[in-house]
Amino acid sequence: MKYIDLRSDTVTEQPDFMKEAMFNAEVGDDVYGDDPTVHKLEVLAASIVGKEAALFVPSGAFGNQLSLFTHCKRGSEVIIADSNHIIAHEVGASSVIAGVQLRAIDSPNGVIKAKDIEKRIRFEDEDIHFPSTSLICIENAHSSGNVLTLSEMEEVYNVARKYNLPVHLDGARIFNAAASLDVDIKELTKYCDSVMFCLSKGLCAPVGSIVAGSKEFIDKARKKRKLLGGGLRQSGYLAAAGIVALEKMSTRLHEDHDNAKLLAEELNKIPDIKVDFENLKINMVFFKFTSTNIDTKALVKYFLENNIKINDMENGVMRFVTHYWVKKEDVLTVVNKLKEFLNA
Amino acid sequence: MKYIDLRSDTVTEQPDFMKEAMFNAEVGDDVYGDDPTVHKLEVLAASIVGKEAALFVPSGAFGNQLSLFTHCKRGSEVIIADSNHIIAHEVGASSVIAGVQLRAIDSPNGVIKAKDIEKRIRFEDEDIHFPSTSLICIENAHSSGNVLTLSEMEEVYNVARKYNLPVHLDGARIFNAAASLDVDIKELTKYCDSVMFCLSKGLCAPVGSIVAGSKEFIDKARKKRKLLGGGLRQSGYLAAAGIVALEKMSTRLHEDHDNAKLLAEELNKIPDIKVDFENLKINMVFFKFTSTNIDTKALVKYFLENNIKINDMENGVMRFVTHYWVKKEDVLTVVNKLKEFLNA
Amino acid sequence: MKYIDLRSDTVTEQPDFMKEAMFNAEVGDDVYGDDPTVHKLEVLAASIVGKEAALFVPSGAFGNQLSLFTHCKRGSEVIIADSNHIIAHEVGASSVIAGVQLRAIDSPNGVIKAKDIEKRIRFEDEDIHFPSTSLICIENAHSSGNVLTLSEMEEVYNVARKYNLPVHLDGARIFNAAASLDVDIKELTKYCDSVMFCLSKGLCAPVGSIVAGSKEFIDKARKKRKLLGGGLRQSGYLAAAGIVALEKMSTRLHEDHDNAKLLAEELNKIPDIKVDFENLKINMVFFKFTSTNIDTKALVKYFLENNIKINDMENGVMRFVTHYWVKKEDVLTVVNKLKEFLNA
Amino acid sequence: MKYIDLRSDTVTEQPDFMKEAMFNAEVGDDVYGDDPTVHKLEVLAASIVGKEAALFVPSGAFGNQLSLFTHCKRGSEVIIADSNHIIAHEVGASSVIAGVQLRAIDSPNGVIKAKDIEKRIRFEDEDIHFPSTSLICIENAHSSGNVLTLSEMEEVYNVARKYNLPVHLDGARIFNAAASLDVDIKELTKYCDSVMFCLSKGLCAPVGSIVAGSKEFIDKARKKRKLLGGGLRQSGYLAAAGIVALEKMSTRLHEDHDNAKLLAEELNKIPDIKVDFENLKINMVFFKFTSTNIDTKALVKYFLENNIKINDMENGVMRFVTHYWVKKEDVLTVVNKLKEFLNA
Repeated sequence: MKYIDLRSDTVTEQPDFMKEAMFNAEVGDDVYGDDPTVHKLEVLAASIVGKEAALFVPSGAFGNQLSLFTHCKRGSEVIIADSNHIIAHEVGASSVIAGVQLRAIDSPNGVIKAKDIEKRIRFEDEDIHFPSTSLICIENAHSSGNVLTLSEMEEVYNVARKYNLPVHLDGARIFNAAASLDVDIKELTKYCDSVMFCLSKGLCAPVGSIVAGSKEFIDKARKKRKLLGGGLRQSGYLAAAGIVALEKMSTRLHEDHDNAKLLAEELNKIPDIKVDFENLKINMVFFKFTSTNIDTKALVKYFLENNIKINDMENGVMRFVTHYWVKKEDVLTVVNKLKEFLNA
Repeated sequence: MKYIDLRSDTVTEQPDFMKEAMFNAEVGDDVYGDDPTVHKLEVLAASIVGKEAALFVPSGAFGNQLSLFTHCKRGSEVIIADSNHIIAHEVGASSVIAGVQLRAIDSPNGVIKAKDIEKRIRFEDEDIHFPSTSLICIENAHSSGNVLTLSEMEEVYNVARKYNLPVHLDGARIFNAAASLDVDIKELTKYCDSVMFCLSKGLCAPVGSIVAGSKEFIDKARKKRKLLGGGLRQSGYLAAAGIVALEKMSTRLHEDHDNAKLLAEELNKIPDIKVDFENLKINMVFFKFTSTNIDTKALVKYFLENNIKINDMENGVMRFVTHYWVKKEDVLTVVNKLKEFLNA
Repeated sequence: MKYIDLRSDTVTEQPDFMKEAMFNAEVGDDVYGDDPTVHKLEVLAASIVGKEAALFVPSGAFGNQLSLFTHCKRGSEVIIADSNHIIAHEVGASSVIAGVQLRAIDSPNGVIKAKDIEKRIRFEDEDIHFPSTSLICIENAHSSGNVLTLSEMEEVYNVARKYNLPVHLDGARIFNAAASLDVDIKELTKYCDSVMFCLSKGLCAPVGSIVAGSKEFIDKARKKRKLLGGGLRQSGYLAAAGIVALEKMSTRLHEDHDNAKLLAEELNKIPDIKVDFENLKINMVFFKFTSTNIDTKALVKYFLENNIKINDMENGVMRFVTHYWVKKEDVLTVVNKLKEFLNA
Repeated sequence: MKYIDLRSDTVTEQPDFMKEAMFNAEVGDDVYGDDPTVHKLEVLAASIVGKEAALFVPSGAFGNQLSLFTHCKRGSEVIIADSNHIIAHEVGASSVIAGVQLRAIDSPNGVIKAKDIEKRIRFEDEDIHFPSTSLICIENAHSSGNVLTLSEMEEVYNVARKYNLPVHLDGARIFNAAASLDVDIKELTKYCDSVMFCLSKGLCAPVGSIVAGSKEFIDKARKKRKLLGGGLRQSGYLAAAGIVALEKMSTRLHEDHDNAKLLAEELNKIPDIKVDFENLKINMVFFKFTSTNIDTKALVKYFLENNIKINDMENGVMRFVTHYWVKKEDVLTVVNKLKEFLNA
């Protein structure tokens, strides 16, 4: 890549060995079930997360909304942290596609407690004024940079079991969560009924995500994927990249985490900067400028002139994201350029 | 009424003078705009709450959901306390009719603060991942028994103004709120763009509520009322009761509040009972049994045998509601019967 | 009534004996299931149409849309004549409330043939590109003035049975259809799974319609009625009128039909007028002016000055509707006034 | 390709020169607007169809439903032939995503006449019972195998202009239509406000379609594409294939049409076969077996054993589709194998 791009891990381009796999993929019309590479990816993905079946979808948001659409009867309720991607960054889609009523729990780092869930659970048979709860959603790793622990996930899963409710895991960065906790991904996905995870982002595939769950769930989701316009034809090229993502890229994420830690430490040494070490668990570094007279727009511009891409501050917070294309020396370059800017 | 009915103020039957007004109502086909009594009610109702126009609707839930449907583009967001009737007791309708995404704030007594609202406000033009906020909802009196103060309402209204957002007031019991605060109802409704209030409940009309707002808003709501099946024909009979409700019944609610206070004080003298005086602001008394071995199902049955109707405990809390048909002596009868039951 | 009002039978005011019944009705909170008059009406209505259960709803459009919402899964298909009230006059509600895809059959008089239905029936299991058919709708009497024959209804019902699909009958004027065919209403309603019929219109109740069907269907519809804001409180006043409508008014509709026939014959004698005798089966007379220079706006005005209310021409057709308040002498007055106008 | 695959042109694999273009594509994160190849494709596509702007979408169904979602207010009406793909093969999505009421015109070959459109057009301001018409849809080439003529398209467009309504063209196979009529594609797309066309199918791209229209329309559609989960990351690989599809593949479709004609003529010589020459305008041959004792399941199996893939009969009709990978000699092979089967 031409730039040191810290805006997100969604910007990751494809390494040559991934492109080779794409180029050599055997493909077919997947709407007819004829694409062997898609089929192989779906079997592999299901196996990795310990579910019966899996489905390739065009994007993470597509996979999350498809999961809601498949789990939830229209007009039912979904219990979810208010900060989750499904609410925060999916354009209000849950009210359009699934047509559900959200019961948002205020939790900036995505942790939701059994008691807060339990007081929101209800069933239409109880009272003529009630809809039914149909789903509980969690997100891990959470986009705040936090990683839910196994016991935090188990707590949610247990309350769901108690009321016979499904749990959907937005695992866009589930491999980052697993790397951060140093556990097999199945230790996380065993606490959900369905999981969406991205092949793009840190895993470097160009396009696509996976939804996994029971065979019955995936069969229903496949039909609804068609309704939503996600039935693709020769998607084996994308699936081939996805297979490489799962086989080769998912095991190297600790490098990105290490680089994020290095970046955090170096940034925090700068007088005007305060890093949020609490939410430094994956490949994202959040920090604030303690001085108010930093012109962040000028910083974005200065960095761009120096071949570094960053996003501007959001709600007073800066976010730098590491990934495959951000090497240790890039981290040091970024820190030096930032010092230069602040000293200018 | 044959019973002392403390289940709700929705159970209120109609006094004879209200029935006389119904019987003598001049009616017409209101879908053609031909019902003079409906017209008179709508003009009167708009004037009382200080809005340009008003619309008669079949129920409070109908009026609230119609207001959301009229204010909000499908897929937009509504900021609201999680405890509000619109979420808690309207069967998830906001996800079906208006098709909006709720941004619920956890607030058991319905008070929502500017900072909690402000951090949820967003606009689709800002970011490709965002829907737009389209509405802020408040409820006064709140079904917890709480009454929002003028300054609590003003705080919400000011933040709404700042972002050019409308405020809808679920004023099912707005006359109780006004009586509790001892202010003219317009002192409350000036802090909203639309208001729904019920002619039934404490005001004793048999059927119907009002939605009021700007002329433009009511014109749109009239059309959408038809879509939702709320275009009625000779509804002047109901409107006649509504006129009596507004003219005669709205001014006597302090009597119900006084009776609720008396009931609360007498109940609280009973050893095993703890009344929630914090939320004793209108005609509702909430209390708990401090002893865990009270069989409330048996209490409901015992009361019924003694011509008293109550609801069973909900989430560990009992609620007794006073209204036009619950006189001071009925309050004392109830307390005595409860003592009898507890001593038995 | 002060006018001879031929605009519709929805304009019918209430005779004194109906108002007496309303005034003397025993009422209660029907959301709690406490209104004995509503209960009596629902039992009576179910019995008259030969169904297990019935539900009082605020309007005909409410009842039709509630039936679709109860029968149909969102995203499924409804087969229906394009001219039916559900499409033509219910503000597109089927796409908002039930969220169904309409498969409209072009049929100006509401008759739909088995072969046209059958070629539209499909099931989601058949093909990944298909939604499922969930309902077939018919309307009798049809708002074109036509009445579907027993065999036309049977034909639809048989094809529905063959595919295990329900049939909903929009019977807003089902009593007119029964009177026209001179059969018991059950001879018509036996060819449907659910039926909506109006207590207002020709039956003269002020407000309200009935949905009837199996007990299971009505239980589900009762819940969804609450979601749609149709849970009313002391609706016994309206139900009392409904009982009179069913017991006293439903048997006299042949008088309205006779008056319509008289009106049709007299109108057709006027040189410039051509009556549509094909669709002269109930209380509606459709006719055209054969001369193009008739100013119908002026006619509406002239009639109003003479205490006669009519609607202006729609799509080149005039419609005059007879009902309880239009007597034989009124018919002759109308014809004479029309002659006066044409000769002026 | 290993088989002669006549099931559809959706099965087309990618020629090597297309794969080379994919492999060499310059990519970026298209959600950030950073993918140069996607950008190049969108500019090229807009220019080819003579519209201001274009948008890459994951599939044809996605593009059609996105167009409805962008043009139409929820609850409005769409006028469309009942046989169009949007109704027939998109899983009822129009009722879920756009939430519109369909006004289907019965037309097996997709031609809709001005008078049939005009009688369905209406506006909510006219009558409290009316929704508004928001869109007219046409499909060319139509999936029946028919091609709408320029004057048939112009007729629809003129009536739309008269009422200030937009026209959406489902041009999944618009290049086939242009080839069949031997006109520039802009001669067709000038009769619509938005057009969706597929890069897959006959044009051989693996995945993806284009929606084109005014800049304002495409800006809105881009936002709604995100809501529907169609915001992709490094989609430049797919776009690179799309560029080749537009530049190299769109000009050779007459070869497929010639092969279809040859196939039709040869099939029609077989005694038991009757080809539908009326709908033989593009790359699809529809035919029936005149003898009823042909076991088409056995035929499908026999063909498969001989490396020929076909779909089984649908509604009594067989369809064979030609494309890039079906050469003239393949046509003859198919005919010979069919003769063998029939003679066996």
